Amino acid sequence: MPEFMDVHHNMVGITAEALKEAHNADLAIQDEEKVEFKKAWADPESGVVYCLSEAPSAEAVQRIHERAGHPADEVHAVPLVV
Amino acid sequence: MPEFMDVHHNMVGITAEALKEAHNADLAIQDEEKVEFKKAWADPESGVVYCLSEAPSAEAVQRIHERAGHPADEVHAVPLVV
Repeated sequence: MPEFMDVHHNMVGITAEALKEAHNADLAIQDEEKVEFKKAWADPESGVVYCLSEAPSAEAVQRIHERAGHPADEVHAVPLVV
Repeated sequence: MPEFMDVHHNMVGITAEALKEAHNADLAIQDEEKVEFKKAWADPESGVVYCLSEAPSAEAVQRIHERAGHPADEVHAVPLVV
């Protein structure tokens, strides 16, 4: 399954609890689109959040994020990994 | 040690070999700044590359990338991870 990195901007001040809650909201419905959110990293100062996932498509990643209430600003397939 | 995500734009068409070479160039000198590049993901289509590292500072990450010939466009501390 292809891997994707998606990026959320404008989450300045995000807390550990808020990140966990958002991640759990994705996990709760991700199976419906065969998406697996693997990890997320957040920088509360700049407000950027990076989410790594495996999914059938970028659209599937975005649909889960939208339904969970936090659409991504960018979704990139990342076929190359080292 | 804090974690950082840095981002390179403008690498449209990057190949698996080029990514490996760039990553190895970082690995070759990273110890000099106590940086550890852990993983990198690349999207040849949009030209974006994400690098995850542990380092004493964002400046240390950027110095290694600069000396290896590929300065990052963004370097973010990512203190929150899920």
